Amino acid sequence: MIDFVDAPGVARWTVGSGVEAIVDGMVASLERDFRRWQVFDKTPRVASHSEHGVIELMPTSDGVEYAFKYVNGHPINTKRGLQTVTAFGVLADVDTGYPTFMSEMTLLTALRTAATSAMAAKVLAPPDSSTLALIGCGAQAEFQALAFRTTLGIDTLRLWDVDPDAVEKLAANLEPLGFDIHRAAHAADAISSADVITTCTADKTYATILHDDMVGTGVHINAIGGDCPGKTELDPALLMRSDVFVEYTEQSRIEGEIQQLPTDYPVTELWTVLDGSAHGRTRSDQLTVFDSVGFAVEDFSALRYLRDSVRGSMHVTELDLIADPVDPKDLFSLLGGSTTHPDSR
Amino acid sequence: MIDFVDAPGVARWTVGSGVEAIVDGMVASLERDFRRWQVFDKTPRVASHSEHGVIELMPTSDGVEYAFKYVNGHPINTKRGLQTVTAFGVLADVDTGYPTFMSEMTLLTALRTAATSAMAAKVLAPPDSSTLALIGCGAQAEFQALAFRTTLGIDTLRLWDVDPDAVEKLAANLEPLGFDIHRAAHAADAISSADVITTCTADKTYATILHDDMVGTGVHINAIGGDCPGKTELDPALLMRSDVFVEYTEQSRIEGEIQQLPTDYPVTELWTVLDGSAHGRTRSDQLTVFDSVGFAVEDFSALRYLRDSVRGSMHVTELDLIADPVDPKDLFSLLGGSTTHPDSR
Repeated sequence: MIDFVDAPGVARWTVGSGVEAIVDGMVASLERDFRRWQVFDKTPRVASHSEHGVIELMPTSDGVEYAFKYVNGHPINTKRGLQTVTAFGVLADVDTGYPTFMSEMTLLTALRTAATSAMAAKVLAPPDSSTLALIGCGAQAEFQALAFRTTLGIDTLRLWDVDPDAVEKLAANLEPLGFDIHRAAHAADAISSADVITTCTADKTYATILHDDMVGTGVHINAIGGDCPGKTELDPALLMRSDVFVEYTEQSRIEGEIQQLPTDYPVTELWTVLDGSAHGRTRSDQLTVFDSVGFAVEDFSALRYLRDSVRGSMHVTELDLIADPVDPKDLFSLLGGSTTHPDSR
Repeated sequence: MIDFVDAPGVARWTVGSGVEAIVDGMVASLERDFRRWQVFDKTPRVASHSEHGVIELMPTSDGVEYAFKYVNGHPINTKRGLQTVTAFGVLADVDTGYPTFMSEMTLLTALRTAATSAMAAKVLAPPDSSTLALIGCGAQAEFQALAFRTTLGIDTLRLWDVDPDAVEKLAANLEPLGFDIHRAAHAADAISSADVITTCTADKTYATILHDDMVGTGVHINAIGGDCPGKTELDPALLMRSDVFVEYTEQSRIEGEIQQLPTDYPVTELWTVLDGSAHGRTRSDQLTVFDSVGFAVEDFSALRYLRDSVRGSMHVTELDLIADPVDPKDLFSLLGGSTTHPDSR
């Protein structure tokens, strides 16, 4: 039997705990894991690309626990009434190889992505940031807003999306929560006066959401929509005058904004800022980019945070996922001495 | 909601259908998939190695359906009352990226491994084979015996294992099913007069279960225990005088018996025999080796066979694995308009 949290379970847990409390807890958990980055068994995720999207497996291990996430990315899905991203994940015990915990991760990924953005912004955003531009108002946007408020105190939002309904959806969800919301006329309008810019669009193409001449200095760009080969959001010229921070260079060279740059373009892995061996923001006029594609260690951290948080609660059920004979060499015993001709039984 | 078959469900299905009928069906399904090998998106499995074992993810896709299996291999586990191998698997729709089906795969892997061995033996074993030597009498052994009987008509078994209890377990399980069983005094005794030799031991080392001088000619060796870097069963000299068949060369060079041979040692991929572009057994004195490590296409085939077989039956339940908001851009709506301060609700 393994512990299992289904989609309604994660939703109930999120409502019960509150998004901001969860983000706070996840940021702390992510910081702990990023500071011990070198213990993790790391590999670029395994992607299966198809015409309309990608299906990925994202494994990692700290030598004691193993985690992987199944996640898809299909930008076309929203036109079909389906989500761009769905996910589930599993924890396992490294010593025995047995799975121990499974959860939906569509909601959990939204939470961990927002928490990861906030963790990066803590060391990269200008001090006293108060305004966040959200370029792309889809499924991730509310979680971004709440994460930046709880972590950095940002409560002014400037919204832009090519889909006006998405802007209205986001405003309707966030206005009751006390945000100061501005609907922008276009992307350049959205980012004017913003301290932090989150780009979170979904298009399986080289899109340029932010042109170089739209962005000044002294800003932090949290670029999370470009996360596949051929899927980017930022003007290469903008990257070239920024200090670029990534999760795991080997994967980001393939999937991140930096796929547009020479393969030796210098980048800083975020964990080195967190463990103190590299600098985050050092100057007020510095332009920083967190070129985030999502990495397995973040899911490892989020899954363990969820597991520890829901343990013993009503949100957890059991799943009989693993056949488990009394004598491990006698798997056949699970067939109850069945003959090969059940009709003759 | 996705369809789910748990461990008791797969056991009930296996008992209800009969191992031999399932192997028959799986062999047909595997042959169809091996004949269309080139449509599959193939990659060596992603392995996370640790002191006592390995955890692997095995994905593949035919462009319409995607499948992956989680599987561990921990030879030490049987000493702890746990299984060496446990597994579960998932099917997904490539077009949307949504998971559609999940199942336990510990039992299913035993069935598909036996069916794959039998499929290979159909084109590689000597005609009119009647005797199977089973070197290693663990969890896989009963399934091997039943698969070879239903596929090749083999009903005489010669058993050997370093653990006498495993031999007795296997004999006790198979004697009631009408096999002619010989308990061998040692490995060389087991393989004498055998037409087919299955080596299925579990040890995470370079073990030499079959030495070159133990084996004559005109025999087919079904080598399934060596399936990890550093884990082999056959004397390299034995391989050098055999015609070696593999599943997917790129993976087998890392994990199979041929990891002991030069990286350009010629091997034949089994699918080329099945589609008629290469020869299987051509001479009565030929020594053939199926250097099987298990490949994702086999799990794809087995999962689809199970899914099609159990559809609409009592063996299937539903799992609410995927958060699914009405408006796909409004994932936040799943939180029911929750404020961020649940205490104030």
